[in-house]
Amino acid sequence: MELFNKYCFIGCDKTFQESNVVIFGAPFDGTCSYRPGSRFAPNKIRIDSYGLETYSPYLDRDLEDHKIHDAGDIDLIFGNKYAVLDSIKEYASHLVSNNKKPLMIGGEHLVTLPVVEAMVEKHKDLVILHFDAHTDLRGDYMGEELSHATVIKQIWNFLGDNRIFQFGIRSGLKDEFYWAEKEGHTFINKFGYDKLGEVVQKIKDKPVYVTIDLDILDPSIFPGTGTPEPGGISFQDMLNIIKMLDGLNIVGADVVELAPDYDPTGVSTAVASKIMRELMLVL
Amino acid sequence: MELFNKYCFIGCDKTFQESNVVIFGAPFDGTCSYRPGSRFAPNKIRIDSYGLETYSPYLDRDLEDHKIHDAGDIDLIFGNKYAVLDSIKEYASHLVSNNKKPLMIGGEHLVTLPVVEAMVEKHKDLVILHFDAHTDLRGDYMGEELSHATVIKQIWNFLGDNRIFQFGIRSGLKDEFYWAEKEGHTFINKFGYDKLGEVVQKIKDKPVYVTIDLDILDPSIFPGTGTPEPGGISFQDMLNIIKMLDGLNIVGADVVELAPDYDPTGVSTAVASKIMRELMLVL
Amino acid sequence: MELFNKYCFIGCDKTFQESNVVIFGAPFDGTCSYRPGSRFAPNKIRIDSYGLETYSPYLDRDLEDHKIHDAGDIDLIFGNKYAVLDSIKEYASHLVSNNKKPLMIGGEHLVTLPVVEAMVEKHKDLVILHFDAHTDLRGDYMGEELSHATVIKQIWNFLGDNRIFQFGIRSGLKDEFYWAEKEGHTFINKFGYDKLGEVVQKIKDKPVYVTIDLDILDPSIFPGTGTPEPGGISFQDMLNIIKMLDGLNIVGADVVELAPDYDPTGVSTAVASKIMRELMLVL
Amino acid sequence: MELFNKYCFIGCDKTFQESNVVIFGAPFDGTCSYRPGSRFAPNKIRIDSYGLETYSPYLDRDLEDHKIHDAGDIDLIFGNKYAVLDSIKEYASHLVSNNKKPLMIGGEHLVTLPVVEAMVEKHKDLVILHFDAHTDLRGDYMGEELSHATVIKQIWNFLGDNRIFQFGIRSGLKDEFYWAEKEGHTFINKFGYDKLGEVVQKIKDKPVYVTIDLDILDPSIFPGTGTPEPGGISFQDMLNIIKMLDGLNIVGADVVELAPDYDPTGVSTAVASKIMRELMLVL
Amino acid sequence: MELFNKYCFIGCDKTFQESNVVIFGAPFDGTCSYRPGSRFAPNKIRIDSYGLETYSPYLDRDLEDHKIHDAGDIDLIFGNKYAVLDSIKEYASHLVSNNKKPLMIGGEHLVTLPVVEAMVEKHKDLVILHFDAHTDLRGDYMGEELSHATVIKQIWNFLGDNRIFQFGIRSGLKDEFYWAEKEGHTFINKFGYDKLGEVVQKIKDKPVYVTIDLDILDPSIFPGTGTPEPGGISFQDMLNIIKMLDGLNIVGADVVELAPDYDPTGVSTAVASKIMRELMLVL
Amino acid sequence: MELFNKYCFIGCDKTFQESNVVIFGAPFDGTCSYRPGSRFAPNKIRIDSYGLETYSPYLDRDLEDHKIHDAGDIDLIFGNKYAVLDSIKEYASHLVSNNKKPLMIGGEHLVTLPVVEAMVEKHKDLVILHFDAHTDLRGDYMGEELSHATVIKQIWNFLGDNRIFQFGIRSGLKDEFYWAEKEGHTFINKFGYDKLGEVVQKIKDKPVYVTIDLDILDPSIFPGTGTPEPGGISFQDMLNIIKMLDGLNIVGADVVELAPDYDPTGVSTAVASKIMRELMLVL
Repeated sequence: MELFNKYCFIGCDKTFQESNVVIFGAPFDGTCSYRPGSRFAPNKIRIDSYGLETYSPYLDRDLEDHKIHDAGDIDLIFGNKYAVLDSIKEYASHLVSNNKKPLMIGGEHLVTLPVVEAMVEKHKDLVILHFDAHTDLRGDYMGEELSHATVIKQIWNFLGDNRIFQFGIRSGLKDEFYWAEKEGHTFINKFGYDKLGEVVQKIKDKPVYVTIDLDILDPSIFPGTGTPEPGGISFQDMLNIIKMLDGLNIVGADVVELAPDYDPTGVSTAVASKIMRELMLVL
Repeated sequence: MELFNKYCFIGCDKTFQESNVVIFGAPFDGTCSYRPGSRFAPNKIRIDSYGLETYSPYLDRDLEDHKIHDAGDIDLIFGNKYAVLDSIKEYASHLVSNNKKPLMIGGEHLVTLPVVEAMVEKHKDLVILHFDAHTDLRGDYMGEELSHATVIKQIWNFLGDNRIFQFGIRSGLKDEFYWAEKEGHTFINKFGYDKLGEVVQKIKDKPVYVTIDLDILDPSIFPGTGTPEPGGISFQDMLNIIKMLDGLNIVGADVVELAPDYDPTGVSTAVASKIMRELMLVL
Repeated sequence: MELFNKYCFIGCDKTFQESNVVIFGAPFDGTCSYRPGSRFAPNKIRIDSYGLETYSPYLDRDLEDHKIHDAGDIDLIFGNKYAVLDSIKEYASHLVSNNKKPLMIGGEHLVTLPVVEAMVEKHKDLVILHFDAHTDLRGDYMGEELSHATVIKQIWNFLGDNRIFQFGIRSGLKDEFYWAEKEGHTFINKFGYDKLGEVVQKIKDKPVYVTIDLDILDPSIFPGTGTPEPGGISFQDMLNIIKMLDGLNIVGADVVELAPDYDPTGVSTAVASKIMRELMLVL
Repeated sequence: MELFNKYCFIGCDKTFQESNVVIFGAPFDGTCSYRPGSRFAPNKIRIDSYGLETYSPYLDRDLEDHKIHDAGDIDLIFGNKYAVLDSIKEYASHLVSNNKKPLMIGGEHLVTLPVVEAMVEKHKDLVILHFDAHTDLRGDYMGEELSHATVIKQIWNFLGDNRIFQFGIRSGLKDEFYWAEKEGHTFINKFGYDKLGEVVQKIKDKPVYVTIDLDILDPSIFPGTGTPEPGGISFQDMLNIIKMLDGLNIVGADVVELAPDYDPTGVSTAVASKIMRELMLVL
Repeated sequence: MELFNKYCFIGCDKTFQESNVVIFGAPFDGTCSYRPGSRFAPNKIRIDSYGLETYSPYLDRDLEDHKIHDAGDIDLIFGNKYAVLDSIKEYASHLVSNNKKPLMIGGEHLVTLPVVEAMVEKHKDLVILHFDAHTDLRGDYMGEELSHATVIKQIWNFLGDNRIFQFGIRSGLKDEFYWAEKEGHTFINKFGYDKLGEVVQKIKDKPVYVTIDLDILDPSIFPGTGTPEPGGISFQDMLNIIKMLDGLNIVGADVVELAPDYDPTGVSTAVASKIMRELMLVL
Repeated sequence: MELFNKYCFIGCDKTFQESNVVIFGAPFDGTCSYRPGSRFAPNKIRIDSYGLETYSPYLDRDLEDHKIHDAGDIDLIFGNKYAVLDSIKEYASHLVSNNKKPLMIGGEHLVTLPVVEAMVEKHKDLVILHFDAHTDLRGDYMGEELSHATVIKQIWNFLGDNRIFQFGIRSGLKDEFYWAEKEGHTFINKFGYDKLGEVVQKIKDKPVYVTIDLDILDPSIFPGTGTPEPGGISFQDMLNIIKMLDGLNIVGADVVELAPDYDPTGVSTAVASKIMRELMLVL
């Protein structure tokens, strides 16, 4: 008699060996400046994923037909962000060196930094598709250079210009927008994603890393996040975006900033899970 | 000195005799596979309906000008779905034989089955308009044939092809979609209701039963349900749908799958109540 | 070493003397007929405003470049609405006589009445732009003439015809709509704001008072209010409205009916705060 | 086929005529100085009372063996406390003149005033047993004489010394305690009820009105109230108190200050309902 | 690099083979008459158990020094209680035949029935220690013999008199108390556990099954349950009870009726987890 | 006309100069291992303190008769605990050098470390009274020496034996208890405070620092904390403890680990506020 004792996202119970996509959680929220709790996202997403079907009528594909392994969570130390970032980078490098595509569940946005560091060692001309409400382009946050508010700037520090494409942005300092828009260090599509099509065309031969800060979504459908910012895109928009990514050479991705305890209805987690499913089906 | 002691939906305090529409509750959620609690919907809808006005500016009609009786809830036995279904069918038949149009408040979706069984005895060529996020077309759910995931298939078992029209569907097994779309056993309008107009034309001479699983709505506006499925229609869409039904020969209807305890803001119940009001005004 | 001990909306820490806009709270909800709690709005908005940036990418303006003072809350007496209204009027008159533009945070909608009374003493030809889900045009509510359901009618009593412009209205008695639409005592734009452009043209030389009952917004994005009414406008719509007001001679404004305890996600307060920011940037 | 459509506390479905106890709700919270919402108590208590049994193993008595009628709620006008108090007094007088014992469900504590006024017309030597966390002995609250913080002082105004017995009191102004304890205008048993036994002996020949402000209970078991005050008595203490009242000539009673929306677990309402049951069984 | 991917209660990660205690979940709540949701208990307990230490200072023992396996959850079918009970019995029999002591996490109380059926086949003179707020001794519940309100009566049907010992009972029908107390079919210790010491003496040579309906606890510390019943024992009492059981020949146990969604603070789950830990340490 | 714009605990609005006690907040929760959010405690306590009276009937003293200044919150940087600890130490030293007694509101328990460091520079023979559910005596937590789980051990590192007295402890590693109890490095009173009287006698000539981790309280009355641990002391116990401290030479104190977002009823904050009031009245 078989019991249910799976610790994995629905339909992602293949072995590490046979899989080409590996899910892992990075439950860290230590630099979050407002409402913490994204540490609880990976576990909550796994559990609530069983409220989904494995089949997507949008893409007419089924998770069960894919080779995906859910490896669990990295055991992180609260209160030492340097050790945290090292651990994540180490695991991401392990995946890269085994030819697995990482799909990370945050945690806060800073966890993206070490994964991109690991990815770029293999994929020299990596480009970043960044979906977010916030610019994340500060040089420092109250003196700290490593923060969820500086992460994209940190990535720019080693990638440089013309490598980062930002969508949905609707909040930031005046200086951040100026730096991105006027000085042109990143490509920035304010408020929406109307220029995604042309960007997709431009980068279609490059290896792409996709980082989705879920607060790009409007808080009506995604209230469970650290810094809800009204005026975001709809869930339907997010599905359109993922469809537009289909065909790109995506070598890794992450989904960050779900703070499930701030949404007692559970809908934010349902949204994150469904985005995970669709994203896996285009990876 | 008159006290308030009404146990009814606002404006629905006419007697059984004088009314042609009769509201009743079927507070059963026994086969719900994920989050239970739709048993609490009828009572919560009655109470919160007093936050509404009886007048609809959308339709320029007023509940007070209609003859509607709210009969209360069927006393159901948890843990015996057969007895539950029998009780509902018995009461629905009682209404039909008294020439009353039933408007049932669920409960989970399985409660629709016995009402349709009662309706079809009188209205041989009954057609079903089904609004839902889910196909509900499984043959069985873990071996059980009677479930909220199989209810439309169960109805098809005695109605057959060309009698069931499904709208808003965005979740199901691949096989369910195949059975409906490829084999053509039901008419299925995925994701939205763009084909509702032509369907309304086609069935305008038939007696129609309308079953609304409220999870057709996007969880941004309707999080209080058993299985929230992001990507649904808006409340404005639902109003449009109801306006499109005006003029059809609707002989009965239901509104199911509100689980009010999963929405601490109370908005899901406000939505259900307002849909009830609009629906009554086109019955 | 400087500590944080500001009791003000983010970026609104200028002195009373140097400012031309003065924020104050009117935490009264005594005539609220359904869910009370708008008394808690001013404090909650101040605290949560620190989750915002002071810079608006929509308007490309920054609160820090404006002269705004947050004066705190009027100390109101629960259980005596006459004393409450007197206190508010006294403070509003104080602002008017010092050539400050009032920006009041409610409280329920009745608090608008004394501010308009104070404003009209200076601005004889004041017109009212009223954004709301509800008509608020009852002559009395259960015999009481002063209520959040009668406030616009009360204002009409001394302003008269052609001075009040209502947008977003989707709930009221049949008689209220008749009085406004058929008898033409107010301009009423049901459901949306498609006629706002022409109204703005018409009143562009008049002093304008803007009163925003936040329940004009759809409860998907703004559930935290006394009487949530599904079918409202989106947050994006609200931003559009504020942009359309830019250039008008706005002499005062208020934002009312946030009841923060009914939204455990905190999103309703985030919405109210962001609308406050945008509104200040066009004042 | 019988449907459930009772609008009453469980087991309290006798007719007005045959009953000697009449329950009614007074859903008013207009002078509440902190968290409002006791207006929602009567309805919530009725609904949740069906989670109780009618039989009390503590008293070995059953509600079904008693003659109790639940009349519903007085239709009160928010925003006019004078009209509210008049309506309550009128209904309480109606009960008294029909030889019914009133059992009122608040609402806030001010609603006790008109009932005591009505009672004392018939029972000249009425004494008050007052259970509460707060003294409620202010002369005025911010200038207002009629408030939930002044209600017992208001009652003292016409009853005078030696008629009011207060238990469980643990919060108030220094002056209130002085007035009660040093000047001896009321009997005050701070923190607990250790002197209840001797008081019961002293008043056993008098007609007694029992007013229970549920915030006498510790907020661990009763968080759902306007002003939670840690350090209260346990539920077991409350049962002991009610047993000690058995045998007194209780001519009326009330249970006030449940604010159900502040307790998402529903336990506060369960507590209120069970206290109602036990209280009815000793009336 | 090791990731966290355990699907088990903290410290219970031994293999099935090496363990003598086996935890499993029975997530069924289909006959629950009031608030459903105990189906979510096993998973929530596992996750929140990581907020505990494995060491008990009460017993000076550590889970890590014991051999306990957490097998996961039985895959149950909602809507068919007969199939559910069969599955549970089958798994419990499997454990018994492998000389494992079952420790089941409910689900509602009906799930105890099949485990006791399985246990008694091996332990002919099994006695039951039953801790609960409710008698659970109904012959039927609305006609149904299998219900969480009848489960102890069902067990009595095959065990007979002098085999069932009930503690903490404070709610039931008058007839149930009469049947137990006056007719003596079960030993019933109302309200508390003052007679537990003598019962322990009496049964110390018998195989014992311990069933803990967590609603025996006061809702102040355990609000997250289907039918909260004020007036229960404290957590400290529960610890005392478990210490008193130490030394008995306990052959199996269960912990039922946690409905975690009804306690947003998470304390009810923390309580359940800590009782699980202590119970395991005396098994 | 005076408006309410105080950013301080009720009754603590004296100037820095005239006060001998200074309240400040340290909103840091960066090493919290389970549920974060104690960063929100200082602000929430200030706001909700206005639900209290300034007069304590327990001590017959009034905050208004004391000289207390509420300075606001230290502006801390999330993600850099070293900078955080430095800022706190700097401010505490500032208070000590101005002969002010600090009363800090956490934040998590690690914030106690820098205050004690500052205090001991002036009060060489400082002793610590530590009230907590947890030992906090780990040498490191996952390799980190600075954590809310190691804070008391860190303090011991420079204070040494016979200087730390722990009460209410009911959770920890076996090794921590052994180190404290068997090796005698701290005085540890498990589960309660029955030995507090003798400790008070022993230290009555020493300068005393009191650190209260509010999770010493039972989660029934204090669920809003990072790691709720059932089996704690009651609020009445806490009042007793504070009375026992009256007369000691307390030179500083703190109240930590309130995480208000985990208690939707607000009771945890009311508890923290009342403990603050009583504590100030014995300082």
